[in-house]
Amino acid sequence: MEQVFPYEHLHAFTRDVFIKMGCSPDQAELATTVLLSADLRGIDSHGVARLSGYVRLWEAGRINATPDIRIVHETPSTAVVDGDSGLGLVVAPFAMEVAIRKAQIAGTGWVSVRNSNHFGIAGKHAMMALQHDMIGMAMTNASPLVAPTFATERMLGTNPIAVAIPAKEQPPFVADFATTTAANGKLEILQRKEQEAPLGWIQDKDGVPSTNPNELKQGGALLPLGGDREHGSHKGYCLGAIVDIFSAVLSGANYGPWAPPFVSFLPLPPDPVGKGLGHFFGAMRTDAFRPADEFKANMDTWIARFRNATPAAGHDKVLIPGDPEREMEAERRTAGIPILDPVVRDLEGLAMKFKIDF
Amino acid sequence: MEQVFPYEHLHAFTRDVFIKMGCSPDQAELATTVLLSADLRGIDSHGVARLSGYVRLWEAGRINATPDIRIVHETPSTAVVDGDSGLGLVVAPFAMEVAIRKAQIAGTGWVSVRNSNHFGIAGKHAMMALQHDMIGMAMTNASPLVAPTFATERMLGTNPIAVAIPAKEQPPFVADFATTTAANGKLEILQRKEQEAPLGWIQDKDGVPSTNPNELKQGGALLPLGGDREHGSHKGYCLGAIVDIFSAVLSGANYGPWAPPFVSFLPLPPDPVGKGLGHFFGAMRTDAFRPADEFKANMDTWIARFRNATPAAGHDKVLIPGDPEREMEAERRTAGIPILDPVVRDLEGLAMKFKIDF
Repeated sequence: MEQVFPYEHLHAFTRDVFIKMGCSPDQAELATTVLLSADLRGIDSHGVARLSGYVRLWEAGRINATPDIRIVHETPSTAVVDGDSGLGLVVAPFAMEVAIRKAQIAGTGWVSVRNSNHFGIAGKHAMMALQHDMIGMAMTNASPLVAPTFATERMLGTNPIAVAIPAKEQPPFVADFATTTAANGKLEILQRKEQEAPLGWIQDKDGVPSTNPNELKQGGALLPLGGDREHGSHKGYCLGAIVDIFSAVLSGANYGPWAPPFVSFLPLPPDPVGKGLGHFFGAMRTDAFRPADEFKANMDTWIARFRNATPAAGHDKVLIPGDPEREMEAERRTAGIPILDPVVRDLEGLAMKFKIDF
Repeated sequence: MEQVFPYEHLHAFTRDVFIKMGCSPDQAELATTVLLSADLRGIDSHGVARLSGYVRLWEAGRINATPDIRIVHETPSTAVVDGDSGLGLVVAPFAMEVAIRKAQIAGTGWVSVRNSNHFGIAGKHAMMALQHDMIGMAMTNASPLVAPTFATERMLGTNPIAVAIPAKEQPPFVADFATTTAANGKLEILQRKEQEAPLGWIQDKDGVPSTNPNELKQGGALLPLGGDREHGSHKGYCLGAIVDIFSAVLSGANYGPWAPPFVSFLPLPPDPVGKGLGHFFGAMRTDAFRPADEFKANMDTWIARFRNATPAAGHDKVLIPGDPEREMEAERRTAGIPILDPVVRDLEGLAMKFKIDF
């Protein structure tokens, strides 16, 4: 069913694949670290399982392995970055660095990115701000799979939002979530297990609520966070729309249903409204508001108070955003990373294609 | 059941009440315009129905009618504003103006506010940015009524987020939503009608899902957007937490369960961690990213495309955030504003108290 690999093994292999794609050693190293941070943190759908997807996009000419990533417009606290069709895995850290540099001078920095590709997990980029005592934010638009409230058409991606906030003695607060009820990766797990999805995750091609996890292959759609109007799906739709607009309309990338698909077998929309996929990053110096030490001490109080909130029956504690992923990373760094058999075969295929060892 | 009043009538009366509280004519006018924007836009729970609540907070010494609202810390793109216990209805526009002025120079402006009170509807403040071709954002923490996922304790407010985005020919995109499944105002309507709430809105004091809209009076709690873990309530909890931290930990206001209650009969927490309630505002110049005209033309395309997405059976169109409120405002400006009888009696009571006409 699955095999366990040491992190270092997956890292060396993934890096070799990016090198074979033509990435510079530095960019291959960076792309690998970003991609595998998903596996370490337990977001298995966004990690090495997607490596062959990136390769296929490169083979289709949709990823440029040697991009000239550059700032095309800026003000003291903002910039637009053009990713030159590069891997989102390297474009995103470049843009987040720009946001951090802007924040060092102007207090905050905000960077919208066009002409990029999928960037791995949003949380990894947001967390770059933490070591600078900054709050970090990252979001991205993505392949259209989500129907707005009252619609049947797939107009938005799962459009995640990540916010990382530093604390002092406590570990940081790290929220990282799709703006849908459930991420697509969770559906894929149900498909593999041949189990039904809860109502509120998906609808069929006519907009009728469905429990069939294969509905997306038959014209169905994922639902915005909230699930239906009565449970606030219009709020999830708002969130997904805001991510789309900040990431793609501000930067000049493709937005809404024009967002390029991650899978290479789907054609690009024939009438693009921009360039590639879009992201949006933010960095706010905590001491642009109050002394960093004071802020972080209050975050300690916030975190301790919430972690000790009275738990509901059947639960032993209340979680702080980032707790499960941090615990998973600690475990997987030592115990290794379990990889499902189909993914192992996929990686073996890549090894064969590039004549490298897995 | 209800009476209809012209907007001007409610405006003149509300302004008189704020004057009687000791507000300057300018601040009374501003507070009135902000408060009644809720009634105009159809958010009846946040408008004139709350006027007597503000008066009671003033009588309890928790609202300062003549505040010295000032910037206590700033960088090129940020500021912290101390509201001096003023009405949130006047503190918020002051702070949003600061954000807009910062954005004019630095590209973006971000203002965290402490020592404030409830500020009406978030959307009104975010929309101040639109006339400057800026994107506006507003959020606030609020009385603790919401239990985090897996908790029974009320730790967060309904903590709304508003984002206003300008377009060219199309009306603006204006999202304004509580980070809970349903706002408290919706529960109050069910209480009055003696109807049950859908599952996913509330839980009882033991954390068990409930349909009883009176559950909050018996130790129950509102639920974060998503409703339960399976439907993503941890994401709603993240959103409410982010609003709380940006509004109150960044500024030095009271956060989480320490947020001061809106109702004057509840005591203030005895061990405050900050001053008053907190808000957070943002303004981003669209031309800090790309020419404003180009941005707004693309927003027109975005809005038109989403409005024309294929509707689900039983729906004739897909809504753009802000559509229902804008249509409501157009109607109520001419046809008048319906006020429920208990609210009418409440306003009559205020007229008597202050010896003014209603």
